[in-house]
Parts: sequence; structure tokens; C-alpha cells
Amino acid sequence: MKIHGKDYKTVYFEEDSLFLIDQNQLPNELEIKSYTDYREVVEAIQIMAVRGAPAIGAAGAYGMALAAQSAKDADFRSALKKARQELIDSRPTAVDLTIGVMQVYEAALKFIPDYDAARKVALMTAHEFTRRSEEQCYQLGLHGADLVPDGARILTHCNAGALATVDHGTALAVIRAAHDQGKDIFVYVDETRPRLQGGRLTAFELEQEGIPHAVITDAAAGYYFWKNEIDLVVTGADRICLNGDIANKIGTYEKAVLAKHHGIPFYIAAPNSTFDFSCKRGEDIPIEFRDEDEIKYIDGNLITNAGSPALNPAFDVTPAEFITKIITPLGNFDPQEAALKVQS
Amino acid sequence: MKIHGKDYKTVYFEEDSLFLIDQNQLPNELEIKSYTDYREVVEAIQIMAVRGAPAIGAAGAYGMALAAQSAKDADFRSALKKARQELIDSRPTAVDLTIGVMQVYEAALKFIPDYDAARKVALMTAHEFTRRSEEQCYQLGLHGADLVPDGARILTHCNAGALATVDHGTALAVIRAAHDQGKDIFVYVDETRPRLQGGRLTAFELEQEGIPHAVITDAAAGYYFWKNEIDLVVTGADRICLNGDIANKIGTYEKAVLAKHHGIPFYIAAPNSTFDFSCKRGEDIPIEFRDEDEIKYIDGNLITNAGSPALNPAFDVTPAEFITKIITPLGNFDPQEAALKVQS
Repeated sequence: MKIHGKDYKTVYFEEDSLFLIDQNQLPNELEIKSYTDYREVVEAIQIMAVRGAPAIGAAGAYGMALAAQSAKDADFRSALKKARQELIDSRPTAVDLTIGVMQVYEAALKFIPDYDAARKVALMTAHEFTRRSEEQCYQLGLHGADLVPDGARILTHCNAGALATVDHGTALAVIRAAHDQGKDIFVYVDETRPRLQGGRLTAFELEQEGIPHAVITDAAAGYYFWKNEIDLVVTGADRICLNGDIANKIGTYEKAVLAKHHGIPFYIAAPNSTFDFSCKRGEDIPIEFRDEDEIKYIDGNLITNAGSPALNPAFDVTPAEFITKIITPLGNFDPQEAALKVQS
Repeated sequence: MKIHGKDYKTVYFEEDSLFLIDQNQLPNELEIKSYTDYREVVEAIQIMAVRGAPAIGAAGAYGMALAAQSAKDADFRSALKKARQELIDSRPTAVDLTIGVMQVYEAALKFIPDYDAARKVALMTAHEFTRRSEEQCYQLGLHGADLVPDGARILTHCNAGALATVDHGTALAVIRAAHDQGKDIFVYVDETRPRLQGGRLTAFELEQEGIPHAVITDAAAGYYFWKNEIDLVVTGADRICLNGDIANKIGTYEKAVLAKHHGIPFYIAAPNSTFDFSCKRGEDIPIEFRDEDEIKYIDGNLITNAGSPALNPAFDVTPAEFITKIITPLGNFDPQEAALKVQS
């Protein structure tokens, strides 16, 4: 992605360190933090310095690789097991994290008792996971752009951009590709409370790419549906089930119901690592509840009645019946068949 | 309403001054401001120191009465006409404002050239409009409570509370009455971006009344619908048309579509002054767009990507087909017949 005209990736590894663009500083400051200890990576995921399903998948894979580098031969297996669990538990909903961590963990374990080889393989596997994830995002963007007509007014929710992935994005990969093809598009960006990933990160990415857009509050999309001023909706996902149900950022379900009511196509864009082949249906997806203070405070300032509790589900489930197509690196599929197509 | 155990009204008149609870200071500070010049009332309405359709109706009526007090005999008629227009234009969507202003204006005009009588009648008419509005809110609360089952989990949007009216509220009059009847209820409060009237004002009122509640982001209601944890929705309105279409705070339409999809009753509560008998259908309602900085800043702090524009429609239209009943001072009616019942 371009930031101030220069190329950046959200997640990358150089020498012996993992580098992450700190998403809690954007859009005000572009700060890239380095990590050499997997426990710092756990914390970065928890505080959402890195966020977005594919991005935390890659960060988790590298976190696992970092754990392997520092694990001693004597308790290599148990050290990796501990790191694996801490990384996976750092956020529950996005399956990419589990998949990234497990790929590295299992690859490393195969080489025991050649611990040096196991360490090398751990890092190679993290590199490969990350490279594939980036490539898949680029590919799904091209497929998704086929679904974007010239002149389209597009609604997106949260940040499913380059900042939510290694690069390119998922929903924003589609939008970038359509824009690159010269299509005249306009993007309504849900600000996405409580953490404002839309108003802060998606708006920032679109501005950097010169793509026409405007931020709206999460509750305002209905007005634009009612005015027939939205032509399609595209978002990312944090987990896709075998039956085509998906979990994504809280608020996605509301947009899906509105889109269906208005007969507007609703697309989900995701790389392969977002598919959970062990998940039969949306009800099986664990939904993370985060601290109420994410709602009650913004940048440390209280914005809600002090004496009132807040409830903060971070994700919701959108059943397959609301999804027109799932945009994948292999093509655009009906939600019910997407998992099968990606798995085969 | 009770605030810190004492009785307050949102709008009242004493001696020669209008008093308004300043809603831009709540819930942090309870500040009551006084007004003797109608132009200050215009400004108070514009900056939303007073807000909520019935409350700005009463403030507008008193604003008109203040204009009459200070108008000189020599240009009484033209001074009142000017004040009338400025008051009505201060916010376009809520019809209560126009109705309150016009009642006082027309009453005063009848007494010209007895200017002293016109001034007295202007104030008496404002008193009467305000008294009736308060009484009607109390009455509609009792009717609405019939629709609230014991154990109900209720969703409300924005603030349709005592702070949005002279007293009691509209949606919150219903909730207060159900609570007073001993029903065990729980209220999900949409925080209501961009101005957070839900998280700040509704949450404050419910806390003051000891009614169990939690604040959620505007996008989170869908999750609770999906979990079957919402039994009914009740909101206020800013204008009700002859055909039962209504305008209310931006985001209301989204909740109505969700409620309909889930087969959950969706109620609108409003006093008579919210009915616009000259408005045939929702498309005829003027929708106010407010400054983008309401979205981009909170309490003076930038929270959105600086270089991105924001679009800020303050209201949306909910067509009658999504409304189960309109709760009025005269009873609970199907939306299509509510205007007729209230008018007769």
C-alpha cells in the first residue's frame, strides 16, 4: 500500500524482528514497531496495535516463529505449546490467527529433535503463510472487481484494507482493483464504533489512494439505502463457516439485513485463511466481548454517562442467506459452496 | 423528571425568562440557562442546547412569546414575522417546532392592534402549548406501557426522554410507566452517533430513575436481534405524516428494518404536536444535514482521518410498513390511522 507516496506492508519480518504498523497511532502518526518476543506480539494483538483477520494471522504466524527462535532445546516442545496457546487465545473470533499459528507450530514440531531445523522451518513457514496471504488478497481483489460496475456507490464497514492484511486488503483490495481499472466509484465508509477503524483507517487508506469517499456514522447507511444511493456492499470477514455463514466486525449483520431488504448485493471478501473448515455454522463461532471502556471512552475522554454500563460485542454473525457472493482468491462463489471450492 | 432526587423540567418559564436544561453539558454537569431574547433561543436550538422534537416545540413557542414581549408596537407584526421565520428555520425536520411557533404567532396576531393583549396571549399560548405537551407525554406513556410485557428487553435509539420533551419523554415515558407499574424491564440504549444522545442523555435518565440498562454502539443492536434478546423497539419521532411514515434520529430506519426482519414489534411514541397534517408521506419530510465536524470531532478532539469528508444526515425516514403501532396521548394506533385519530 502507498502511504504518503511510499510502499509499505502492514506485517513484515526483517533480520530477526517482526515489524508491524501500529494501528493505534494511525491516521495521526505512522509508527512501525518491532518485536522479537512472542509475548509482545500477543499483547500487540490484544491491544489491536495489529488488527484485521489476515493481518493478525500473519502476526500470529511470526509470533509463533519468534517463540521457536527463543525456545531452548530442553523444553522446546512445551515452550512452543505454551506460545501457541497464548497466541491463539489473544483474540478468539478471527480464525486466521489460529490457522497462522498452527501452521508454524505443526511445521516446527515435525523437525524435533533437530531444533535448529525446527527454528528455521518455523520462520520459513511464517514467511510462506504471509507471502501467500498477501498474494491471495491481491488475487481476490481482481476477482471482486468483476462485481463492481462503473459508477458504483459502495458501502464498506470497518477496515478490511491493506492495514487489516499483509497488503492490498480484502474489501479494499476489491475497491483498489476497481479503481485501478479506471472505474468511477464512490465509497461510503461506516466509521465503525467503538474503535473507529472505518473513520480512521479505511478513510486514511482511501485518501492515500485518491479514491473518492465519505465517512458516515454506522447508523446512517439506512438513509442512503432508502435514497437508493448504495449499489453494493463489500466487507471482510473474521471467520467463514462451511455453510457460508460468516463473522465480521460488529455492525456487519445490520448492513446485510438492509442490503437484502433493498435488493442490493452484499459481498464478503476473504483469503483462504479466513475459512474455518471445522465450523459448521455461524452459531458455532466464538464472539469476543471487549472491555466496555472501548465504548465509554475515546482517546481517554469519557463520552458516555459515567454510571451506565456498556455492552461491547466486537463481532456479529451474518448468515449465508444474506450474502450474495464470497470473493476469494479462487473466484467469486455462492456462500454455500465457497468453503468447498477453497478447500479443494 | 428526577435528577439527583429532585424534580426538574427540561423547558419552563418563570417571571420573564425561559429556562432550558443545557443538554450539551449533560451528563457531566446540570446547567440551567435562562433566555429573554428569542435570538438566543434560535441559537440554543441550533447548537442543540435544547433538542428533541417536543422540547424544541415548547422552546420555540416560548421563543415566539419572548419575541412578542420585546416587539415594539410600531412594527409588531413584522417583528413577529421575522422571529417566526428565524425560529422555524433553526431546525427543519421536527414539526413540533413549527407547530409551537405558529400557535403562538397566530394567537398573538389576532389581538393586533391591542399589542399588550397580544403580548399576554402570546405568553399564555406558549404556556398552554407547553402544559399540553407535558400532559400528552404523560398520557402516551400510560398507553404505551400496555404494549410492554413484564420481562421485556427493550431497544431504544437516541434520547426520547424527559430531556427531549417538557417532561416524561415519549419513548422513555413508555419505559418509565412500565417501570413504575413494577414490570421487570431492561433497556438497550443505542449510543446514537454522532451526538451520543443515547449514551449521554438516555443512559443518564435511566440511571437517575434506576431502570436497568446498558449502552451499546449503534451497530450492535443487530447482534442482539440475532440472539433473540430484544423483545420490542420504541423510539420517538420528529415528524409523523398522514400515511404513517415518520422521521426520527438517523439510525431509526435501520432498527425498524431489523425489527421487521426479526418479527419484533417496532413502536413510535409521540405527542400530538409531532403530527404534520400537511405531510402526505415520508419523502416530503425535509431531512436536516448537519456539519461534518459533528462526526469528525468529539468534544473538540479529531477522531476521524483529517483529510476525509463526512456526510451527516441528522434524521431518516421510517415508512409506515415498518411501524407496529404509533403510541399517542389518545391511544395506540396503526400508523396509517394515527393521524386521523389524533386530528379528530
